[in-house]
Amino acid sequence: MTDTPTPKPGKVRVPAEDLRTFSAALLEKGGLSAEHARTTADVFVWAALRGVDSHGIARVPAYLELLAKGVANAEPDLRTEPGAPAATVLHADRAPGPVALTAAADEAVRRARTNGVAAVGVRETVHTGALGYYVSRIADQGLVGIGFVAGMPNMGYTGVKGAAVATSPLAVAVPGASSSDRPPLLLDMATATIALGKIRQAKAAGTPLPEGAAATADGTPTTDPQQAVMPLPLGGAKGSGMSLTFELLTSVLVGAPIFAAFHSDDPAGRKHRQNALLIALDPAAFGGGTRDFTTAVDATLGTLKALPVADGADGVHYPGERSAGIAAERGTQGVPVAPKVRADLTSHAERLGVRLPEALAAGN
Amino acid sequence: MTDTPTPKPGKVRVPAEDLRTFSAALLEKGGLSAEHARTTADVFVWAALRGVDSHGIARVPAYLELLAKGVANAEPDLRTEPGAPAATVLHADRAPGPVALTAAADEAVRRARTNGVAAVGVRETVHTGALGYYVSRIADQGLVGIGFVAGMPNMGYTGVKGAAVATSPLAVAVPGASSSDRPPLLLDMATATIALGKIRQAKAAGTPLPEGAAATADGTPTTDPQQAVMPLPLGGAKGSGMSLTFELLTSVLVGAPIFAAFHSDDPAGRKHRQNALLIALDPAAFGGGTRDFTTAVDATLGTLKALPVADGADGVHYPGERSAGIAAERGTQGVPVAPKVRADLTSHAERLGVRLPEALAAGN
Repeated sequence: MTDTPTPKPGKVRVPAEDLRTFSAALLEKGGLSAEHARTTADVFVWAALRGVDSHGIARVPAYLELLAKGVANAEPDLRTEPGAPAATVLHADRAPGPVALTAAADEAVRRARTNGVAAVGVRETVHTGALGYYVSRIADQGLVGIGFVAGMPNMGYTGVKGAAVATSPLAVAVPGASSSDRPPLLLDMATATIALGKIRQAKAAGTPLPEGAAATADGTPTTDPQQAVMPLPLGGAKGSGMSLTFELLTSVLVGAPIFAAFHSDDPAGRKHRQNALLIALDPAAFGGGTRDFTTAVDATLGTLKALPVADGADGVHYPGERSAGIAAERGTQGVPVAPKVRADLTSHAERLGVRLPEALAAGN
Repeated sequence: MTDTPTPKPGKVRVPAEDLRTFSAALLEKGGLSAEHARTTADVFVWAALRGVDSHGIARVPAYLELLAKGVANAEPDLRTEPGAPAATVLHADRAPGPVALTAAADEAVRRARTNGVAAVGVRETVHTGALGYYVSRIADQGLVGIGFVAGMPNMGYTGVKGAAVATSPLAVAVPGASSSDRPPLLLDMATATIALGKIRQAKAAGTPLPEGAAATADGTPTTDPQQAVMPLPLGGAKGSGMSLTFELLTSVLVGAPIFAAFHSDDPAGRKHRQNALLIALDPAAFGGGTRDFTTAVDATLGTLKALPVADGADGVHYPGERSAGIAAERGTQGVPVAPKVRADLTSHAERLGVRLPEALAAGN
């Protein structure tokens, strides 16, 4: 706790492909199968490339710990119920989120191709990872992907004292025209006003938080980053309501309530877990063909980009556009890895006997 | 335009059943079939009971005008494409929203019962009416209802000068336990910070608007109700992104883009129309039974209601709870009808030879 911002030491840039191989090797040593390790590394590198560093490569040590403690199951028995033709639940058996949700996304695509739409619930995964990855995976196959996640309460709820609900996100990815060099639309938003990471950053830097964005432990709004422990819901009642609703659409739908258990007297209710729901929609089932759809999506995004820019604004952007730009830059320049993350990764690599990527080793 | 608030003359209270019969009679005289008139009146009365007066009985004169001008089609040829087993599009043929979306909700329920989930797009209706009604209709049949609507641009978009996107709503209704007297959860929210109606109210009353809630014609935020012409998106980029995404999930998916057409040089692009997407999820397809699900929903809402209330808050509420309370009160006390609405309805009733409900006639 300090009010003086410390100067930021330099970050090293590491090629994404090296981080992918390295992360997968660490996770495999941590107990995951080669396939699951690769899948999990893919999700981390995807987030790291897009600038979502909180869900990027910094998660490798955290996942190794979850695996070592048995909180995450290294050898999960993933099981899909028969369900109905277009809807089912995937029992994640405490698999790491990337393993469970990647399987769920692929199942949703398979079922939506036959039925026009499909919904796959994910029951009891440990940490979802970047929700945007899974809906983008659906969109990469030409379908619209919609995703909801619920996690452990870490956010205020209008009218409640203390943390009540989770910052549970909503994500939507829409496929774009393959002929276009415009990145696809990807909405990936938490139901909080600001991210937890922003509170941590403000605390470290000693800068005040925006009005109405965060609260103290008892739920009182504060702009003081030293007092703030949780974000407030987006727009008050709207964000509160969305978060509660997403708990019903995920945890309660798949039969693994988090919110009710967390607020009960049972200590097991505070055990970390997450649930999700992925929906895939095949544009071909809605009258037009897939190509007509993606062409019209592209026209819509093009129309937005051509609208007059407001005074003082730095341009007009659609969801996912900026992070696609970061991904393009990091794809050629490498992913920046912060000193603390580098140190953590290095110590895990030494412990597990995994060779460091050249750029990471050189940075030490 | 006045800065002086005028004193509010008294409203008359009219029994909901009388308003339903009366509205249906007016709409039938306006050209709708008896069945479509009744369906449309049901949606208005549902909104009026719940206190959503902007979508209530005041809409009858507006719909009569839309029908008289031929903007709304009194004899629509509703047509559902074969689509896929669980997804299709309903061509509304410019039917009033209540006619088209009620049919779409029922189609979604039918298809979801067999497939576990179903999605029905609605192409080119005129005015949707209260989106909450249609998802509640799905929930009344034991399924989870999710709905999106896109309309004509009437809201700002972060970074754009002027109105760019619509206040397009999202709604979710979740069935509750039949044994519970708790009203079901109904999230029904626009992607705007405040409703257009709130701007009109502030203008009439001369009271300032909340910071960051509304903008002038060129998109500059203002708290002056006389300068404000449109709401700003919920949370800036998040509300902007949701609204744009909902246009893709509705208008673009069903092949009737609104946003791109509105901002084009073609005057036809400004012709009033709306599109929608309804999704129904059958809880029985997700592992537990329907009864397990509704019991767990009830436990979640009960847990929320039992959380400690924040200092200064008037209680803890879930989405749809307050409006259900209003509906209970109005169900016994009657629906308040404002003098202007009463005068409008009376003149239409005289013109069309429809008998006024007793309470409305007595109020004159």
